[in-house]
Amino acid sequence: MASIKDVAKLAGVSVTTVSRVMNNRGYIGSKTRKNVESAMKELDYQPNQIARALLKNQSHVIGVIIPNLSHPFFAELMSWIEQYASSQNYKLLVCNSLHEAEKELNYIKMLRQNRVDGIIMCSHTLEIEAYQNVNLPIVSFDRVLSSSIPYIANDNYTGGELATNHLIDQGCNKLLHISGPLHYDLLANRRSDAFQITCMKNNIAYETIEGAHVKATFEENWDFIQQNIADKLSQVDGIFCSNDIFAYTLYEYAKSVGIKVPEQLKIVGYDYHSFTRMLQTPKLTTIKQPIKEIGNALASSLIDQIENGVHDNGSNTILAVELIKGETT
Amino acid sequence: MASIKDVAKLAGVSVTTVSRVMNNRGYIGSKTRKNVESAMKELDYQPNQIARALLKNQSHVIGVIIPNLSHPFFAELMSWIEQYASSQNYKLLVCNSLHEAEKELNYIKMLRQNRVDGIIMCSHTLEIEAYQNVNLPIVSFDRVLSSSIPYIANDNYTGGELATNHLIDQGCNKLLHISGPLHYDLLANRRSDAFQITCMKNNIAYETIEGAHVKATFEENWDFIQQNIADKLSQVDGIFCSNDIFAYTLYEYAKSVGIKVPEQLKIVGYDYHSFTRMLQTPKLTTIKQPIKEIGNALASSLIDQIENGVHDNGSNTILAVELIKGETT
Repeated sequence: MASIKDVAKLAGVSVTTVSRVMNNRGYIGSKTRKNVESAMKELDYQPNQIARALLKNQSHVIGVIIPNLSHPFFAELMSWIEQYASSQNYKLLVCNSLHEAEKELNYIKMLRQNRVDGIIMCSHTLEIEAYQNVNLPIVSFDRVLSSSIPYIANDNYTGGELATNHLIDQGCNKLLHISGPLHYDLLANRRSDAFQITCMKNNIAYETIEGAHVKATFEENWDFIQQNIADKLSQVDGIFCSNDIFAYTLYEYAKSVGIKVPEQLKIVGYDYHSFTRMLQTPKLTTIKQPIKEIGNALASSLIDQIENGVHDNGSNTILAVELIKGETT
Repeated sequence: MASIKDVAKLAGVSVTTVSRVMNNRGYIGSKTRKNVESAMKELDYQPNQIARALLKNQSHVIGVIIPNLSHPFFAELMSWIEQYASSQNYKLLVCNSLHEAEKELNYIKMLRQNRVDGIIMCSHTLEIEAYQNVNLPIVSFDRVLSSSIPYIANDNYTGGELATNHLIDQGCNKLLHISGPLHYDLLANRRSDAFQITCMKNNIAYETIEGAHVKATFEENWDFIQQNIADKLSQVDGIFCSNDIFAYTLYEYAKSVGIKVPEQLKIVGYDYHSFTRMLQTPKLTTIKQPIKEIGNALASSLIDQIENGVHDNGSNTILAVELIKGETT
């Protein structure tokens, strides 16, 4: 690829002159400018953004660590983050942690060594200290990492409340909740808190079963249901699942053992991502996360930190959720 | 972030000595090595990979341009590309072209300015000259760009043949094919060629309708069907769709107008991505693209070019497809 030296040589000027033309700095005669510009065009010269990044100590690159791109929620989230970042002239390095702590740690190290301007953390398999030591602008999705690291979340508590109240309104009185993993203090666990509190307030019998980390396949969910939930299905009349793929698997499982949804069993999911929107049979009753708004908020919050410095807790953002009534309740 | 100068200062040595320790070059006494290493640890020093990239003229960054990450095929493909690249110590810059030629062109320019080592092109909205002028290692997915640019493709012709023969074997004799866009000479068009030739060989009445660019939503496909296909549905008994999301929409549309699948109308799709694998009602009959193998081949072919130079045409890869028999035939 042509270098700035090649341009200078062809135009018959110094490298400093080429640099001045590119940056519109200092006095340059119109003939010289024309010569330099036509040399740049002839050589198809592209300014070296890596050299610029080194010089200005700003790479305009953002790292995003997610559990897995092939999960429809994260694919869609990533797509919105990329579109927002690109509109602000930032590029994205994408990392799949696959829910492995070691991979997540290595990605953080790699991103620091590559001098990204900041990191969007959507994977959370490490203890909080690991994130506090990163020493770069960070924004977190759905987890509180520290008072100096802003987070973006959907309104998980309201989501859990909407789902549970909806099941109760539809006449359920023996409820089950399949949560996400409860070990890390994820904000998604507020869905479970809301479920329990809403059941208690309404004097409804309830149970919570801790789900595994986001499963992306039908088969893994099916196995989990067989091992942990199958025996309980006939004893409950409403189930709130903390994600749509699980809710869909549960619907198919109930159907396979002759339990009618929604007549005998009502099911509410969570997410309303591209899979759910595409699915017609059944149309799931679910809680809609505003995925586009979450992606935009993650990107804009991080870019704001990069360009204007770290804020205090005031910059957390909680985005509203919505009940989508489908055919499973 | 700590610099190499800070490390040298704390360890009481010169920058050259720190650099020697890091690169294991020249003689370093064991006490000096220990001092430098403990200074690096104390300051949490991370070597600057951007400086290294500039020096070595290799960034270990690959650019990937895809139409849209939120489409399940590309999300899954991207996930496999990232996993392979990461295992070889390469990072990915991801770009959503959204099928817009101007965006695609800007991304190519941006990737060159950021000195990526090479580009994986999965979006094809430009004329071929635009790719030939890139002057970087490129590998293309499903499109022949030039004899010096390798491509990776699934065996589209065999896929089209398998789908069409399957419909004929199941007793269909009035066939319809919904292709992708035929304007660019994409390898996916070999599916349509195979459809036509197989119909002709078997003396089967057929028609091809040109579909629009990969639609990712049910609603857009539904509108397309209403406008372009609805009138023909009762006149055919088998339809080969060039993607699964379209096939699923068509199945739902046929159901809504009282046409029974597979009794009155048989449908075959193409892709077998995460959406199709998840979908239980119906299980689609489709042609399986080996998405993991395609992702691995794209990444390994590009890395091979980056590290060992450009090859001739011999390095194209065509990967085998497979008929998955579901409930729609």
